[in-house]
Amino acid sequence: MTTTDTTTDPLVVAGTEIGSRLVMGTGGAANLLLLQDALVASGTGLTTVALRRVAAATTPEAARDAGIWGLLERLGIRALPNTAGCFSVREAVLTAQLAREACGTSWVKLEVIADDVTLLPDPLGLVEAADMLVRDGFVVLPYTNDDPILARRLEDVGCAAVMPLGAPIGSGLGILNPRNIEAITHAARVPVILDAGIGTASDAALAMELGCDGVLLATAVTRAEDPARMAHAMRLAVESGRLAAGAGRIPRREGALASSTPEGRLDLAL
Amino acid sequence: MTTTDTTTDPLVVAGTEIGSRLVMGTGGAANLLLLQDALVASGTGLTTVALRRVAAATTPEAARDAGIWGLLERLGIRALPNTAGCFSVREAVLTAQLAREACGTSWVKLEVIADDVTLLPDPLGLVEAADMLVRDGFVVLPYTNDDPILARRLEDVGCAAVMPLGAPIGSGLGILNPRNIEAITHAARVPVILDAGIGTASDAALAMELGCDGVLLATAVTRAEDPARMAHAMRLAVESGRLAAGAGRIPRREGALASSTPEGRLDLAL
Amino acid sequence: MTTTDTTTDPLVVAGTEIGSRLVMGTGGAANLLLLQDALVASGTGLTTVALRRVAAATTPEAARDAGIWGLLERLGIRALPNTAGCFSVREAVLTAQLAREACGTSWVKLEVIADDVTLLPDPLGLVEAADMLVRDGFVVLPYTNDDPILARRLEDVGCAAVMPLGAPIGSGLGILNPRNIEAITHAARVPVILDAGIGTASDAALAMELGCDGVLLATAVTRAEDPARMAHAMRLAVESGRLAAGAGRIPRREGALASSTPEGRLDLAL
Amino acid sequence: MTTTDTTTDPLVVAGTEIGSRLVMGTGGAANLLLLQDALVASGTGLTTVALRRVAAATTPEAARDAGIWGLLERLGIRALPNTAGCFSVREAVLTAQLAREACGTSWVKLEVIADDVTLLPDPLGLVEAADMLVRDGFVVLPYTNDDPILARRLEDVGCAAVMPLGAPIGSGLGILNPRNIEAITHAARVPVILDAGIGTASDAALAMELGCDGVLLATAVTRAEDPARMAHAMRLAVESGRLAAGAGRIPRREGALASSTPEGRLDLAL
Repeated sequence: MTTTDTTTDPLVVAGTEIGSRLVMGTGGAANLLLLQDALVASGTGLTTVALRRVAAATTPEAARDAGIWGLLERLGIRALPNTAGCFSVREAVLTAQLAREACGTSWVKLEVIADDVTLLPDPLGLVEAADMLVRDGFVVLPYTNDDPILARRLEDVGCAAVMPLGAPIGSGLGILNPRNIEAITHAARVPVILDAGIGTASDAALAMELGCDGVLLATAVTRAEDPARMAHAMRLAVESGRLAAGAGRIPRREGALASSTPEGRLDLAL
Repeated sequence: MTTTDTTTDPLVVAGTEIGSRLVMGTGGAANLLLLQDALVASGTGLTTVALRRVAAATTPEAARDAGIWGLLERLGIRALPNTAGCFSVREAVLTAQLAREACGTSWVKLEVIADDVTLLPDPLGLVEAADMLVRDGFVVLPYTNDDPILARRLEDVGCAAVMPLGAPIGSGLGILNPRNIEAITHAARVPVILDAGIGTASDAALAMELGCDGVLLATAVTRAEDPARMAHAMRLAVESGRLAAGAGRIPRREGALASSTPEGRLDLAL
Repeated sequence: MTTTDTTTDPLVVAGTEIGSRLVMGTGGAANLLLLQDALVASGTGLTTVALRRVAAATTPEAARDAGIWGLLERLGIRALPNTAGCFSVREAVLTAQLAREACGTSWVKLEVIADDVTLLPDPLGLVEAADMLVRDGFVVLPYTNDDPILARRLEDVGCAAVMPLGAPIGSGLGILNPRNIEAITHAARVPVILDAGIGTASDAALAMELGCDGVLLATAVTRAEDPARMAHAMRLAVESGRLAAGAGRIPRREGALASSTPEGRLDLAL
Repeated sequence: MTTTDTTTDPLVVAGTEIGSRLVMGTGGAANLLLLQDALVASGTGLTTVALRRVAAATTPEAARDAGIWGLLERLGIRALPNTAGCFSVREAVLTAQLAREACGTSWVKLEVIADDVTLLPDPLGLVEAADMLVRDGFVVLPYTNDDPILARRLEDVGCAAVMPLGAPIGSGLGILNPRNIEAITHAARVPVILDAGIGTASDAALAMELGCDGVLLATAVTRAEDPARMAHAMRLAVESGRLAAGAGRIPRREGALASSTPEGRLDLAL
């Protein structure tokens, strides 16, 4: 029967089953309580946390971030340290290594950001850092642009997944170039997780319909007016898009097609 | 708490609660068994049936249509006769009257189709027929184009809902002019049900996010490779879009916005 | 040879050659001098003027409008009175009749506007007023929505052209539903002139590529920072789109296609 | 006054004025005569030629390519050798060096193609090859994807222009991600020439409106049914888009805006 049961259709990354295809970020939450409600409503099994800010809990915000680790542990959600805020290969690699020690996990969401205005990935630095981290034993999930060739390079150096953007971080613009995302998912032999750009539920459903194996989002939920309600919407959207992707949608047609054939129509004798 | 429980957030048309915001059509199904599976998976509480073909069950296809009435009764789904195949006001009105007698319901999905190629509504005939049927005591749900002014006229003559198209019938093109749909939902004082054009789940979620109160679809499910799976996807998509519409989505931004502020970052001393 | 020479490829409305496929409106101009520069740069041969405001030149703005008639006469541009500001059939018909007397032309751009917020056409009133004016001997060019069926009805009652909107008046959003415009141009036996929504030159080129016979615009030029420069851009865009529409464009392909075949490549012996 | 006169608004690359903002490719032409007509109609001053195939004129097609050089010389069009068909840094660099010797120009359109199915640029190889060629004294115009960060890297290594794609080569899909192109043009300090994806005239106009300094296209003209007519359309489209980009377009508005204010309207006393 049709199902979105995570026991029969789980997301598998690096041989590990993740209990949901919706990966959450924690940035942007107003407070830990709202974040907790949203995480629970999302049903997520994997959630990113910014390592750099955790380790330096010298401000109220950073202290809250430190609290996130405890929260994820209580909720039984796997924590995925990221290298957010790293603008060079060296920074990113060092941050990943610190995260491994501090958090006891070799998984890392790799970000090598080109600048603090666009927040776009640096394609050259990203491949270099990914290569170094894979050789160092990390399970690397890189945040990348939507270029199918760069996605291939990241896979070639051994990344466990590729995470292309739909649109710039925090923009809420959805998926600006669906053809690129589809080209990536069609070619990839590792899971593809759409990361960045999601604004609302239909964006997440579309990502899955384009063949993504999962969706990662943060502000679309944490900065929504009702984070828990939007988290619930996103959970259903990801399940819905996954089902639709496997259901063999009707082709797009230029022009109408009656659902019923005209034969056998009642003769009204008009 | 957030919910899509139909007992707390039902679709109400003409004072009557409908048990789901997903309205189904029956055209295009390969056979009754597949249709039954799809209807059950969709969770629908209201389903359209073509009256003209039912009443004249002289072909195998028409006989199957006649069987649909029995099926809906068994499943406890309210049947909504439509005037599909009617190309004039007179045909549509007469068909609606026959349906009232034959089916024991004064509800009708009103179609006045301009021609059998575009299958687009005839705007002038539609308002005229709607006006006549409302005066005759019908609960009229008209299939209309996406013109906000025509939707207003239909509401003015007393229609119980307005059902604008997203794209031509059977095209699977989704919602070609989201601004028009949004203009209709913002202005309407009766339920708005998107009717025609849906191709996949994200289209249905988008319809709800644009403010629609429900979605009506047929071939997107009945002609999908796995109708029951797609029906399940559509059910979740409608729920998801309804939740998202009420969750206060983040604004669209031209440009990135970091989910976390840069203060308190770990100093890597690089 | 290929040409956009207006002597060999003119726009013909009701048997009359118009010297350009770019029809201008006059609303929104800061002053008559800027308007004159823009009209000259546009190369237009047909320009709309609001009759209601002309006839009642009791304010500075209305006096300026009255001056427009003299300006058009000096420039040798045919004036097309419109019924802007008319919200009912009666108003529109009476305004057209006054225009005929005052301006000595039976041509009229017919507007029957539903309300002063959306400025969208009232589809029912539009057909009724068009029918009355055609019977009364007018050459009627109706401003309509983008519904292919309504366009057909307007043609059926004898309109000399149909003028569908690309987007709401003054919105600058371009052509929101290109498929509808293309459906109208494919079916029409009278000229189709895109009217309303144009924001920039590529919008006008697209309108022509979709098969329109002309483009009508006002604020995209009159409210641009440099109206004469934008008018020049629009003139070239309309010519360009007309040429492209007749040049047999390449098909859209999902996937790349090398412009050169690989045979005969130099062997680099690498 | 407003102008597209190439003497007052020329494209300047590496200090050299190019006589038109429309750069042509030669691939896909049915024969030299049709190509000549198209080049003349386009008004181009710079045209790419595939070096690899020229140098190895052992097939009829290659012999025709060799003839292109003579054609360009007769027409007074600057030839720009490209490295089409090069799938590695080494191939591309060697091809560029051969072209310099054979053609007597240090200008090169640099292509490092990832594979012969997608024909997409290899981002890492592209930067590496560009860097090597710039150091070797070349004027490098790289064909790149639409990633703003990669464009910046190419500029950083000294490229004389950047040439992002609108869509895959030969697809005719236009500009799939206009925001990326606009981000590139806003940030670039060298000319940006849209390269690949153009299908019709409005695509070229849009490229210029997004801030591109020029447009490069081949198959949109050479494979059109009437290449010379489409070339003419493209010439006007590029001029039109250039004018529009400098004319200060009206903002996009959600909702209508009357071009005329309602005051001073004629009182019809209805």
